[in-house]
Amino acid sequence: MKYAFGVDIGGTTVKMGLLDQNGKILEKWEIPTRTEDNGSKVLPDIAAAIRDKINEKGLNDSDIAGVGVGAPGAVDDNGVIYQAVNLGWGKFNLKETLHSMVKLPVKAGNDANVAALGESWMGGGRGFSSMLMVTLGTGVGGGLVIGDHIINGAQGSCCEIGHIHLVDNEEEECGCGNHGCFEQYASATGIVRLAKRRLAEDTKDSVLRSGEISSKRIFDEAKNGDEVAVEITKRYGYYLGKGLAICANVLNPEVIVIGGGVSKCGDILFDLLRPSFDEFLFKGCRETKFAMAELGNDAGICGAARLVLA
Amino acid sequence: MKYAFGVDIGGTTVKMGLLDQNGKILEKWEIPTRTEDNGSKVLPDIAAAIRDKINEKGLNDSDIAGVGVGAPGAVDDNGVIYQAVNLGWGKFNLKETLHSMVKLPVKAGNDANVAALGESWMGGGRGFSSMLMVTLGTGVGGGLVIGDHIINGAQGSCCEIGHIHLVDNEEEECGCGNHGCFEQYASATGIVRLAKRRLAEDTKDSVLRSGEISSKRIFDEAKNGDEVAVEITKRYGYYLGKGLAICANVLNPEVIVIGGGVSKCGDILFDLLRPSFDEFLFKGCRETKFAMAELGNDAGICGAARLVLA
Repeated sequence: MKYAFGVDIGGTTVKMGLLDQNGKILEKWEIPTRTEDNGSKVLPDIAAAIRDKINEKGLNDSDIAGVGVGAPGAVDDNGVIYQAVNLGWGKFNLKETLHSMVKLPVKAGNDANVAALGESWMGGGRGFSSMLMVTLGTGVGGGLVIGDHIINGAQGSCCEIGHIHLVDNEEEECGCGNHGCFEQYASATGIVRLAKRRLAEDTKDSVLRSGEISSKRIFDEAKNGDEVAVEITKRYGYYLGKGLAICANVLNPEVIVIGGGVSKCGDILFDLLRPSFDEFLFKGCRETKFAMAELGNDAGICGAARLVLA
Repeated sequence: MKYAFGVDIGGTTVKMGLLDQNGKILEKWEIPTRTEDNGSKVLPDIAAAIRDKINEKGLNDSDIAGVGVGAPGAVDDNGVIYQAVNLGWGKFNLKETLHSMVKLPVKAGNDANVAALGESWMGGGRGFSSMLMVTLGTGVGGGLVIGDHIINGAQGSCCEIGHIHLVDNEEEECGCGNHGCFEQYASATGIVRLAKRRLAEDTKDSVLRSGEISSKRIFDEAKNGDEVAVEITKRYGYYLGKGLAICANVLNPEVIVIGGGVSKCGDILFDLLRPSFDEFLFKGCRETKFAMAELGNDAGICGAARLVLA
């Protein structure tokens, strides 16, 4: 049996896991992300934590397939990270640098892409030959996995689907400076924006007229039968389905796996997006399936371990 | 030195080539596509032509890496073609069927994807790690090549970019039944449609007001200084750039190679599409390059040969 370390570097903590080749998480733990001195302590801390764990478990280096790392920035096929603003990192070869410290084989990828690989291996994408992972959070992120491989794109920006143009004549500006980007509608902040627009249209009664509006609350109130909330979720589903249809027409994945905060509303999301997804879908892609992400916060360490186990 | 046969099956002729492993076309010829009896004669004809050529050239089977085939239909990773209406073919395993006849290794792909592989190997995409090939003809087709590999998609429909939704509120219907598809604007028929719309807007003088309007003539008259033709090409460039930006945001290819009838207008096409391409592009994809297809009708046999030489 071979083992691997999966490392998911975040802005405040580094999630770490020891997995076996079947994808079973034997142990997981966290260490703080020390971002001082331009993040120069992050990789030494990770290397030390791994060596400690190897000693603690009495493992031999020959039992370890390697260390996989997901980092919050664009990472190319050679392991070069272009920038990780949250960590204070500029451009350098993450893979080779960590390898020189930990003395084990290292592979590295973008954190969202690595999480996608985790879902493809052990989560919602298990058993499918190709998967588009879509994360509906503060923004909209994407990751493409074909077979066992993450498709990184030329500058590590494959599946930056949050910024595909979705709607003409949008007046509000997206964070990226454009107008009408997919994530202006399909993110958790997007649905709140749609809610505020809907509420401003008339004075129809709705519990959403008082209190803070959040993605979760909109879906909860829709389930409780609030008619305005129902309308908002339908509009949300329209945009989500339209954007995913564009992605499916370009990529023709076997399955689209949806994760992130908004996905916690459950399978109703599929019912909401399906009409417009089918409307805008090219017929050659009609067999596209949907699934929910299953691994939650473990997707990152799981996919990172898979980088060195595949 | 290894050799390979590249076969490009069209509705009226089958283009065939004998190439060496460096991509040099040693010989090329055509045979008629006999579509009678549901196209049952097409593959036996191809196998016979290859065996004849091997005898004629005094080659040994051991010198031949194999036979690559591009066919006009969706072909999956196992060599199964789903349908080829122009040939009268239903679903069957093209790769295994031809192999049983020709007794050489066979690989098969969709003709547009295979032509993309040819351009990636020996044409406009040479030297780039990933390439989106876009063909601007009667419709708009696409093919994605990463490294030496065609990305087929789950149902062989990867990069069916002609039918991504591009424009809201379009009233005319696309051939696929939707409204506002990329190819309604960016194809050779699309620019003619844009021209007719522009001419109907007012009565401004233009040589395009008499005679047949074609993609070629619009670009020619724009080069001659016809102001209405110039306007039409600018509108065309706007839509082309907008659609390609969506594709680049999803795929992040290192280069986009443009072929097909419209591309004969030359490098002015890049000037026309660039403003809207840059406008709608996510900044992580800013380094996307453009190139013209170079192989013309040879792209198919070249890419088909590459299938068995890579």
